[in-house]
Amino acid sequence: MVLDGLGDLATKGQNELTPLEAARTPNLDLLVLEGVAQGRMTPVAPGITPGSGPGHLALFGYDPLEFQVGRGVIEALGLGLHLKAGDVAARANFCTLDGKGIVTDRRAGRIETAVCEELCDLLAKRIKKLGDAEVIIKAGKGHRFVVLFRGKGLEGPLTDADPHREGAPIPKAQPIGRKSAKAKKTAKLVADFYKAALPFIAKKKPANGFLLRGIAHQPEIPSFEERYRLKPACIAVYPMYKGLAQLVGMTKLEGPQTLAAQFERYLAEYDHYNFFFIHYKYTDMHGEDGNFEAKKKAIEDFDAALPILLRKKPDVLAITGDHSTPCVMKAHSWHPQPVLLHSALSGSDKLDRFTETGANMGSLGVFEAKYLIRLMQANAKMFDKFGA
Amino acid sequence: MVLDGLGDLATKGQNELTPLEAARTPNLDLLVLEGVAQGRMTPVAPGITPGSGPGHLALFGYDPLEFQVGRGVIEALGLGLHLKAGDVAARANFCTLDGKGIVTDRRAGRIETAVCEELCDLLAKRIKKLGDAEVIIKAGKGHRFVVLFRGKGLEGPLTDADPHREGAPIPKAQPIGRKSAKAKKTAKLVADFYKAALPFIAKKKPANGFLLRGIAHQPEIPSFEERYRLKPACIAVYPMYKGLAQLVGMTKLEGPQTLAAQFERYLAEYDHYNFFFIHYKYTDMHGEDGNFEAKKKAIEDFDAALPILLRKKPDVLAITGDHSTPCVMKAHSWHPQPVLLHSALSGSDKLDRFTETGANMGSLGVFEAKYLIRLMQANAKMFDKFGA
Repeated sequence: MVLDGLGDLATKGQNELTPLEAARTPNLDLLVLEGVAQGRMTPVAPGITPGSGPGHLALFGYDPLEFQVGRGVIEALGLGLHLKAGDVAARANFCTLDGKGIVTDRRAGRIETAVCEELCDLLAKRIKKLGDAEVIIKAGKGHRFVVLFRGKGLEGPLTDADPHREGAPIPKAQPIGRKSAKAKKTAKLVADFYKAALPFIAKKKPANGFLLRGIAHQPEIPSFEERYRLKPACIAVYPMYKGLAQLVGMTKLEGPQTLAAQFERYLAEYDHYNFFFIHYKYTDMHGEDGNFEAKKKAIEDFDAALPILLRKKPDVLAITGDHSTPCVMKAHSWHPQPVLLHSALSGSDKLDRFTETGANMGSLGVFEAKYLIRLMQANAKMFDKFGA
Repeated sequence: MVLDGLGDLATKGQNELTPLEAARTPNLDLLVLEGVAQGRMTPVAPGITPGSGPGHLALFGYDPLEFQVGRGVIEALGLGLHLKAGDVAARANFCTLDGKGIVTDRRAGRIETAVCEELCDLLAKRIKKLGDAEVIIKAGKGHRFVVLFRGKGLEGPLTDADPHREGAPIPKAQPIGRKSAKAKKTAKLVADFYKAALPFIAKKKPANGFLLRGIAHQPEIPSFEERYRLKPACIAVYPMYKGLAQLVGMTKLEGPQTLAAQFERYLAEYDHYNFFFIHYKYTDMHGEDGNFEAKKKAIEDFDAALPILLRKKPDVLAITGDHSTPCVMKAHSWHPQPVLLHSALSGSDKLDRFTETGANMGSLGVFEAKYLIRLMQANAKMFDKFGA
């Protein structure tokens, strides 16, 4: 159970309690009394603030330093695109160019989503293929969109086709690091895309150009099922988290829009899978807004729905975040997120509640998030003894 | 001071306290009041349950993932065999074969130890050498025994000469992984042993065959004394722990059968060594039986004897387990074991007692057991500053 961005900070003079500490959580408290182990997890490494990609890959047991997923890929997943290993994805922005091709506004005056969708439709209709590669274009919010290149022998990462400031032309995307034939082919493909696409929007104002960033391919990731001998399902509302789950081969159970509905779906699907990843976005969202009361309320809403989840008495239950999103920071942070582990073998740390401060005193200590799955598997008695 | 399998779980509705928490330990409590550092140790890695071999190698400062000791070697050590680096050891079972060589009972009707000893004596008398390799056979309990091959150029691991089920013939032991000339020689030696030995017991009922498992050589392990500049002695009662100590070159101080006698022996030998590994088996034994009261009593017995150990005021004293053996599990587990460190420089964590819950809050945190020796050496001021 992932409460996105759950971890927070108590800050003298601002909030003396964290949202988790301040929230009324009677159902969570009951679970803690039944016996749970607590601890804190370092999402990537000490001092490193993760994005949602590394945050979740770590929770799924994949070393986020070994399995790196590009920003373009994450953005594409966030728009609900179904990526295949080897697909090259880029985050894109419409921008404004002057007569000499100089970027005069990197966000094209922040055009409306509707305008962006119109422009993307236009480009998508005119450019379906380039050479042997398929081109997929999908509009996002405001001036943002995503370009996906699907074909044989493509590879990222490339440098950004973005000067990262106004007053300069759009640089060519170039292979980063070793210049493989695949990376060169991909760089040429991006250049060809610019050549083909720019004329179609040359007369549009203010969005007569575009920038591409985070150009990378989706890496081959060993499947969760093979890695852990568990049949996993994802019950998430937001596309990015479904996408991340799909990256490791989880089945997406679509439909539920509320946490109660997600938990009901879990009950309904209980016999068909033996691992469920349930994602709850609002703790992070309100943390990003710096809205302490709303984050606290999101935790209380989670607590109110929790009895539905517990109806099936899961053998092993972990409740945690993918990282911290402290309200005072209005952003993801590096602070280890609290984690609660409940099973017949989790033992009890004899703490009253599940909180950041309590988790500091828990038996799990501070550990790397990538080990959580292994601990859960141990609690499910999935392992033989190591050595005699 | 190793209280084998010391760590345990508090479990709602069963034992709300762990044996260590429930035990009356006035002498340990006094030591804690004098000032100790506490923490918990991960024996191998998060979620991994160790056997006694990896558990102890970690305590001796050897990475248990780097120095792996085969099951055959551990079994041989448990029977008190003195192994040399390169010796190949196998766990053996007498079994019953039908006329066609099919295994009909993998445990030969669980023959009495006396019968096993007779059969082992017979085989040991008839087969002393095969080619240039010495063969050593030693009976264990019931149908179990150990076969040791000592010669030049031998190497494991080999696959088991055991179908692991009834109704199949005994498969040939084959090299695992890279097929080195040494491993091939060892596989041939095992095959030759079968050829030589089976005829001698062909008429015996029901033990007219045998299975070999965990066939591996004893790895070359750098000596404790060279590694740490400490002259180590082992005061243990059970052969396996003496054997593990001997693997790293500790001197075995034989004789004592009770903890009080072990501590007295420590006092007597105090001037002859500067590191003592004292092993106490009963915490683990009662944990394996799921006998909470007996495990608690074993801890109280330890506590009662403790003042003898403390008479010499050791410069650095660590009290811990090699892993947890929770009563509810009746088995070793992955849960980090509590550790107490006492020295003039250990500081005080200001806790009242040495318990799992207290250790969660200790200054040592949760760390890998292989670092304990280094911490002890630091407390003994054995190290220079690193860098300027």
